[in-house]
Amino acid sequence: MELFFLAGSRPVAGNVIFDGAEAHHISRVLRHQPGDRIYATDGLGAEYELELRRVEPARVIGAILSSRFRPREPGCRLTIAPGIIKGDRLRRVVEGITQLGVSEVIPLRTRRTVAGLSEKRLDRLRKVAVGAMKCSTRTVLPRICDAMELNELANRIGGYDLALVAYEEEQNLGLADVLIPGAESVLLVVGPEGGFEPEEVNVLVAAGARCFSMGPRRFRAETAGVVAVALVLQLLGELGGSKSLS
Amino acid sequence: MELFFLAGSRPVAGNVIFDGAEAHHISRVLRHQPGDRIYATDGLGAEYELELRRVEPARVIGAILSSRFRPREPGCRLTIAPGIIKGDRLRRVVEGITQLGVSEVIPLRTRRTVAGLSEKRLDRLRKVAVGAMKCSTRTVLPRICDAMELNELANRIGGYDLALVAYEEEQNLGLADVLIPGAESVLLVVGPEGGFEPEEVNVLVAAGARCFSMGPRRFRAETAGVVAVALVLQLLGELGGSKSLS
Repeated sequence: MELFFLAGSRPVAGNVIFDGAEAHHISRVLRHQPGDRIYATDGLGAEYELELRRVEPARVIGAILSSRFRPREPGCRLTIAPGIIKGDRLRRVVEGITQLGVSEVIPLRTRRTVAGLSEKRLDRLRKVAVGAMKCSTRTVLPRICDAMELNELANRIGGYDLALVAYEEEQNLGLADVLIPGAESVLLVVGPEGGFEPEEVNVLVAAGARCFSMGPRRFRAETAGVVAVALVLQLLGELGGSKSLS
Repeated sequence: MELFFLAGSRPVAGNVIFDGAEAHHISRVLRHQPGDRIYATDGLGAEYELELRRVEPARVIGAILSSRFRPREPGCRLTIAPGIIKGDRLRRVVEGITQLGVSEVIPLRTRRTVAGLSEKRLDRLRKVAVGAMKCSTRTVLPRICDAMELNELANRIGGYDLALVAYEEEQNLGLADVLIPGAESVLLVVGPEGGFEPEEVNVLVAAGARCFSMGPRRFRAETAGVVAVALVLQLLGELGGSKSLS
């Protein structure tokens, strides 16, 4: 299944319109013809089955045959706040966690964060998220927020059913010990390279977050982000099969 | 904790010797002095606490104060056979799964494998594994095998307690449905970009492997490899905390 992205386009009279790169991809790269059936998402949860009516390089029109809402999406709204890391590595985190199923990414400034996050870099991350959404056949485009300070994130913790911090210094509790089965919104905080300072963790815990360990081996920050999301979604029963810890 | 690598060096009379890049790193980059205490592993499970006796650019000698065997290693011997993928992406798989705790990597040639695996590339992967082992403070260096054909891998399935195939077309069974708690050796097979052909999966299943789904969203091959390893280790209780599905 190939899924196309309807950026900002709303259906009008049962039709949708692609333009820009997506129209080019449909018409020129894949050489679709009028009458072909394709799938598209608006990144807000809707998936359309379309029959192409007009196919031009800069403009493709499809008639909606059927639609579904949030197929293949996790039941839980998962937000990840990863410490900002350098260069290509934050991009890889966004790519992996978008495929896995996160709803929102809050790049986090911490005391040990050395990398900045320019508008240009944010823009690139948002493009990476679009590609990863399409590739994974998701119908929700994760929101990539502007960079946030740790104190501001702490203030928002009350808005989630559960806030969790992957913390190297946690010795006892694993994710299964702190995750609440059936949680509908989870904030997952993962440190930058070098981890959090203890006072930073104290701020998050005072605001209601719980710390967990991912075991005795140390992960690089980009591995930690992807692995933490995978572990949360598995425990919530969102990565296949019928069993979960709930 | 920083962990150094004793490549191929055996203790003699209670001392170990570093040479090459590792001696350079200890003496020149980190500027350690005689009397300093450091940790080192032989990549075969041994971890030594050392007191440095001689520190020269090309040769560092440390006296063993204490040693441990396989601290921080998973109890399960996990082998992953990932379909060979292009360029940088196989390197990232090796990096992630080494940090997570695999014991062995068998790069797999499949029908949809388009990338080759030269000696030079294998050599680079082995260096990446050394870096990831040190960074994760592991004491076992995963063996990166030569590329293998799928039929040969199928012949080896009997040598593992359990062989599992991450397969997109599996609709029902999740990892928790097929994983045997307490398995001591697990072979985990993950397809290349584009996945397996059904006949290839049939060959693996006929040899005793079981298929599982990682859910309805599609992962790129490099995400799939890292995620599959994370999920297996979590279910075996090897990624922190006290609870597992066993």
